Amino acid sequence: MRPSGRAPDEMRAITIETGFTKHAEGSCLISFGGTRVLCTASIEERIPPWLRGKGEGWVTGEYSMLPRATHTRGMREAARGKQSGRTQEIQRLIGRSLRAVVDLKKLGERQITLDCDVLQADGGTRTASISGAWVALRLAVNGLLESGALKEDPITAKVAAISCGIYKGTPVLDLDYDEDSNADADANFVLIEGGQIAEAQATAEGATYDEEGLLRLLRLAQIGCDGIFKAQDEATK
Amino acid sequence: MRPSGRAPDEMRAITIETGFTKHAEGSCLISFGGTRVLCTASIEERIPPWLRGKGEGWVTGEYSMLPRATHTRGMREAARGKQSGRTQEIQRLIGRSLRAVVDLKKLGERQITLDCDVLQADGGTRTASISGAWVALRLAVNGLLESGALKEDPITAKVAAISCGIYKGTPVLDLDYDEDSNADADANFVLIEGGQIAEAQATAEGATYDEEGLLRLLRLAQIGCDGIFKAQDEATK
Amino acid sequence: MRPSGRAPDEMRAITIETGFTKHAEGSCLISFGGTRVLCTASIEERIPPWLRGKGEGWVTGEYSMLPRATHTRGMREAARGKQSGRTQEIQRLIGRSLRAVVDLKKLGERQITLDCDVLQADGGTRTASISGAWVALRLAVNGLLESGALKEDPITAKVAAISCGIYKGTPVLDLDYDEDSNADADANFVLIEGGQIAEAQATAEGATYDEEGLLRLLRLAQIGCDGIFKAQDEATK
Amino acid sequence: MRPSGRAPDEMRAITIETGFTKHAEGSCLISFGGTRVLCTASIEERIPPWLRGKGEGWVTGEYSMLPRATHTRGMREAARGKQSGRTQEIQRLIGRSLRAVVDLKKLGERQITLDCDVLQADGGTRTASISGAWVALRLAVNGLLESGALKEDPITAKVAAISCGIYKGTPVLDLDYDEDSNADADANFVLIEGGQIAEAQATAEGATYDEEGLLRLLRLAQIGCDGIFKAQDEATK
Amino acid sequence: MRPSGRAPDEMRAITIETGFTKHAEGSCLISFGGTRVLCTASIEERIPPWLRGKGEGWVTGEYSMLPRATHTRGMREAARGKQSGRTQEIQRLIGRSLRAVVDLKKLGERQITLDCDVLQADGGTRTASISGAWVALRLAVNGLLESGALKEDPITAKVAAISCGIYKGTPVLDLDYDEDSNADADANFVLIEGGQIAEAQATAEGATYDEEGLLRLLRLAQIGCDGIFKAQDEATK
Amino acid sequence: MRPSGRAPDEMRAITIETGFTKHAEGSCLISFGGTRVLCTASIEERIPPWLRGKGEGWVTGEYSMLPRATHTRGMREAARGKQSGRTQEIQRLIGRSLRAVVDLKKLGERQITLDCDVLQADGGTRTASISGAWVALRLAVNGLLESGALKEDPITAKVAAISCGIYKGTPVLDLDYDEDSNADADANFVLIEGGQIAEAQATAEGATYDEEGLLRLLRLAQIGCDGIFKAQDEATK
Repeated sequence: MRPSGRAPDEMRAITIETGFTKHAEGSCLISFGGTRVLCTASIEERIPPWLRGKGEGWVTGEYSMLPRATHTRGMREAARGKQSGRTQEIQRLIGRSLRAVVDLKKLGERQITLDCDVLQADGGTRTASISGAWVALRLAVNGLLESGALKEDPITAKVAAISCGIYKGTPVLDLDYDEDSNADADANFVLIEGGQIAEAQATAEGATYDEEGLLRLLRLAQIGCDGIFKAQDEATK
Repeated sequence: MRPSGRAPDEMRAITIETGFTKHAEGSCLISFGGTRVLCTASIEERIPPWLRGKGEGWVTGEYSMLPRATHTRGMREAARGKQSGRTQEIQRLIGRSLRAVVDLKKLGERQITLDCDVLQADGGTRTASISGAWVALRLAVNGLLESGALKEDPITAKVAAISCGIYKGTPVLDLDYDEDSNADADANFVLIEGGQIAEAQATAEGATYDEEGLLRLLRLAQIGCDGIFKAQDEATK
Repeated sequence: MRPSGRAPDEMRAITIETGFTKHAEGSCLISFGGTRVLCTASIEERIPPWLRGKGEGWVTGEYSMLPRATHTRGMREAARGKQSGRTQEIQRLIGRSLRAVVDLKKLGERQITLDCDVLQADGGTRTASISGAWVALRLAVNGLLESGALKEDPITAKVAAISCGIYKGTPVLDLDYDEDSNADADANFVLIEGGQIAEAQATAEGATYDEEGLLRLLRLAQIGCDGIFKAQDEATK
Repeated sequence: MRPSGRAPDEMRAITIETGFTKHAEGSCLISFGGTRVLCTASIEERIPPWLRGKGEGWVTGEYSMLPRATHTRGMREAARGKQSGRTQEIQRLIGRSLRAVVDLKKLGERQITLDCDVLQADGGTRTASISGAWVALRLAVNGLLESGALKEDPITAKVAAISCGIYKGTPVLDLDYDEDSNADADANFVLIEGGQIAEAQATAEGATYDEEGLLRLLRLAQIGCDGIFKAQDEATK
Repeated sequence: MRPSGRAPDEMRAITIETGFTKHAEGSCLISFGGTRVLCTASIEERIPPWLRGKGEGWVTGEYSMLPRATHTRGMREAARGKQSGRTQEIQRLIGRSLRAVVDLKKLGERQITLDCDVLQADGGTRTASISGAWVALRLAVNGLLESGALKEDPITAKVAAISCGIYKGTPVLDLDYDEDSNADADANFVLIEGGQIAEAQATAEGATYDEEGLLRLLRLAQIGCDGIFKAQDEATK
Repeated sequence: MRPSGRAPDEMRAITIETGFTKHAEGSCLISFGGTRVLCTASIEERIPPWLRGKGEGWVTGEYSMLPRATHTRGMREAARGKQSGRTQEIQRLIGRSLRAVVDLKKLGERQITLDCDVLQADGGTRTASISGAWVALRLAVNGLLESGALKEDPITAKVAAISCGIYKGTPVLDLDYDEDSNADADANFVLIEGGQIAEAQATAEGATYDEEGLLRLLRLAQIGCDGIFKAQDEATK
């Protein structure tokens, strides 16, 4: 039934290539099928002005799509002179999701910026971004621990994200572009290893859904995130 | 336990004053306690370029806070030269929520813009905006039906929105500013009369939550929206 | 002769509702007939960089129209990315007018921002803004005097503003939208209680005017401002 | 008493050098003492969208100061990314002033843009701009009449502008920078040959003024504009 | 003598991985040592407004660095709201260089945009961009020829670019970051297969250079471009 | 053969009028035939943030064309809200060229900004800008030496710039607009008195050129710059 022939609860292949770029303190190229996102973690020994004097650090995210990551070329946001509402919404989500698993006190007065640049898009770019950003963050923090700049690990758990949706009446996991553009409902879940939810967002498109539908989407997401946690584990071992 | 002394499932007083401004085709001043939003519906007999020739209309939302709607004055977005990510996220949500209950084919080739301007903020401005925007939309469409410009009602149902959250470990309904700034989790639900969900967004802040927590928040939202549907009914009778 | 049936020297009804919003240090909703402006005064204990070390304060104004304050919806300036020339001209006028009645040395090193947001427009929005801004300022400064933050009153007089114009050959007071859009000349006067002029601006539109015409407009403005001074008095007693 | 030693009703020397640049349809370098403005008139055979189909033309003005026209260097508005409120206020005034003496129907469907670029500033840049813009406009329209593109002269009269102010208690004509920065009141009048007023703007600075003061300023302006009309006459003969 | 141990006329390893992304009509990941640029060619069946009706096509370039392509993170241009002068200078160079080898008449009324996004920077990003853009263009045009959309090949030759410089007094080829930031002179040459020059840019930094120096740099560039032409040949065979 | 009747190695008349404006520390109006650029040097006793504490100064350039400097009116960059790529490229070139002849250590902790505003354009505006900027800089630095603010001259040599190109197959010096818009190749050289090159930029337009062509253009530039050095000498004596 799915255009890709996948079972409803079947993820696309996940690959995570760590160290994809050499300057960043942590980096990976994460792929969810045809969706490929370059995630880098940059450590800066300074904090935003509104945090000064609190003895805490900060974790933030930025997101962008290369102009030809998509089927048809999109105008460059830098040329347009501003970031779209969609971009800003996604980067706020990336930042919140990663902060949900970092103890900012333990991080100390430094900022880590997670840049997620989509090289190729095929649905699920924001969830791949969050999942890959965690890997980049983990690698960057490992460096701080190894160098002795940090004594205690500020990362409290793994975090991963996955999209689900209702496609032709059936809840399915990890929508690709063909499904995403025809889904009746479209959800993104950010889950923390151990069963907690960091963020749930479910939007009706055309059709609406009910409590039962929301629960079924959440359970698919739990299956999906379990797979991502494993991939993150292997990548950062 | 709540700073306001309300029971966990108790809403603040809702008032809806229709016809608050005279030029808009539909308007109301909606209050959820100390949160007051001026909602106007403006009908224009033109559609966005990308809809031309499809025989459909469009419904969109815009949102802004007056600079001193809040405890401390915020800089005017027009002076800053751009809308914040938060503003854009909210106006996208308002548009999606209202489109979930409009048959765009029946609306015909016209656009209705729902402007939600927060005169005073005390938590829940986006949910008051959506709930009030429906009233403004209903009044504007009534005008089109009365003038004969529309033969059939394009509005398919009521839509309302409410915030819930986990405050000191307890799920509570309709957070005011004091609760919102201290909640462990913060959720916004957009519900359609009859039990369907148009949008669910739940974010962990500090603590996280689980499936059980998400369900309890959703059920509070259903209680809240039932109250809003009644207020909308009375306001537009 | 006037579309509204008013006599040439007859103002529209003025109402001033103080305390319209709860967060601002001073606020009112002022109406000149169908023109309604929400004016708030916000006190901040900081001053612009170029005033530092001079032991003086600052008073400034900002102005905006809600998108559907007018007959047809206007694009939001925040969405357009900049404030129009008209908006900037008006906010500069508001600031200058209020500073004309404030002793900045006595105000001390603090800034008061007067936000004037037009909820509904029917001609004369800038003059209603100035007249209402004085009320908001008065209330805010009263608070500083009551709390002891200020020992001496920095406000030296009342200030009010009114529009006049030549409509079908006759000088008339307080133009509404119908008159304003058809006037031969259009003037705005900012007067100080006691007979002094803070600002006079008279523009020919279509026809021009002479010295005699300018004087007749000024005398109408004196009548109008006397009425506004009374309304300000009552509102702030 | 005046820093320059001029009598209260004495203008600075006015010079107008026509044809200062070769590409513009009309141009001049106008000087009011140390204030020097390059004014060009550019004819374009197109009109703004909102005028289409009305059989009318348009006249508009633009204004800028070179960064080092002033005592201390100012940041370039193009680098800052926006025009200041002051610039926009002045260019709106230039456009209105020139339109006051042009019959737009007779001009036909074309636009004339009057660019006023201040090469050196010493007070009164906006009034020199208006006075010089009329010369550039006159020369450009002469070209249209000579080439036969226009049969009838659309210019109905001369227009000129001059600043006056109250300096150390005395009304004076044509303020230079030293006076302008210390004046108690500052006025700009745009007058039409024959005695009519196109625009009057008088602002109190520090002190205020009364009806008598306004009249005395206007009468000085009439003296000043008579001198400018003569200079315009000679320059365009 | 060179930090990398290379001989003065020795290039870094060049690799070109074609088809790096799946949506673009042509794409490659080109590496000059540690400099890695993703180049995509996007064909659009429309042309810029100023070319309409001329029966010609257009080729243009865009350029960006990912924020963490460099040693320290740079702010995203989209967040800053504008492209830097450096970015604009480089994208103009890319466009001119590629147009030098395309017959725009033969291309027909379509536009090809060459996006060059630097994933990792180690000196020479603009020259790698031009060299890779040619490969992406070649692949995209091959597609047009294969599909029959084009009958004749509009590409007239290969084009490649390389940097050279004077490092510690010696002319050297293909500067990496360490050399580039310490060079006395820095040059970029865009050469066309067969010996012609499309663009030469040589800038003194600290020291200057003479005619002899310019010639020696040009000859190194010819050596370098011969190597790039070979790599382009193999990649597009 | 040249539209102007000039010999291939013949410059247009150069005139330099120093002290063209009175506020700048140094200024001149430079003309290369019909190209006229106002160059001013502004000294500020502050340096950019990234230079603080290094004991060095800075020299930078800015460039703009008045809207009607050209055959048809161009939109003002300040109105457009950003500087074009061409403008930024030219101002970067002006800054680099002048810094090539200034010892920034000797200049001390101050910044000199060279503003080049094109009053009338007829080809070669960037090269006239650089050549005139040197004169403005020389005059401003002379002032610093005379006042004793500087003990030692930080200017190490003269710098001048000229354009050359291949027009109808022949290398020619100092292109005017008619030649520039039809040239096969277009080059700009920035030369330092004594024979050194600060910057060489040669771009093929339509046709390309070879090593021999590049050399011939450079030699023409040397002839041209010798003439400019003489004019600079006379202007600053």
